[in-house]
Amino acid sequence: MAFSVNNQLAKDSVLVCELALSQLRLMNNQHYPWLILIPRVAHVTEIIDLDAQQQQTLLAEINLVAKCLKSHFPCDKLNIANLGNVVSQLHIHIIARRQDDISWPKPVWGGPTAPYADSDLQTLVRGLQALLQRE
Amino acid sequence: MAFSVNNQLAKDSVLVCELALSQLRLMNNQHYPWLILIPRVAHVTEIIDLDAQQQQTLLAEINLVAKCLKSHFPCDKLNIANLGNVVSQLHIHIIARRQDDISWPKPVWGGPTAPYADSDLQTLVRGLQALLQRE
Repeated sequence: MAFSVNNQLAKDSVLVCELALSQLRLMNNQHYPWLILIPRVAHVTEIIDLDAQQQQTLLAEINLVAKCLKSHFPCDKLNIANLGNVVSQLHIHIIARRQDDISWPKPVWGGPTAPYADSDLQTLVRGLQALLQRE
Repeated sequence: MAFSVNNQLAKDSVLVCELALSQLRLMNNQHYPWLILIPRVAHVTEIIDLDAQQQQTLLAEINLVAKCLKSHFPCDKLNIANLGNVVSQLHIHIIARRQDDISWPKPVWGGPTAPYADSDLQTLVRGLQALLQRE
């Protein structure tokens, strides 16, 4: 079966762009700049199930996205994680955390959510697209 | 200043072995097989602050440890994460999660802790050392 984004992930996030291996999406939660990388590989749940080349590409994409977040969104710590306990489709969270964010120092999962205003969401997505194109 | 393991990490975990880049430690929490990789690089808090060669070695060590856990501890999902909101010293969690574990499907951080019995801890550490030596 071909790759498709899990319904829950699709509902909680919006498309930013397609990278070489992964679809990059922005979680619709204004509490933190929170991106997810979803490798376009069907039926994969673990990083270790990707082949060596796919892992290399994923690592490059994690670097790209993490550096982009760190450079353009003031933050105290990046959180980079593959959990997948709720949605098993492989996806890697990259989140810019601040000591004054609503959940600090706790992890974001299961924490409060608040969608962006539509216009803010569109502006943010276009901004991210421009930043990533420049890299 | 030379590398040393953060006091809190040292208190919460025990040494398993030294890998090429990282010190591997077992969290002293019997609720899950929970390992942490601590790259022996002073003053590093983010994966993206490692150089390319260090990242390659770290990726290999994540694969080694994750495959070891998955092969020898029945589990439904691996959780692989760098958070560092509480202890900023770079460390990567690799945890074997089960649908019947005490925190499922929530993340483990901030969840219940219960130390192993001393003899169980020693047996587990020796078992992990033997498994990793075979790889």
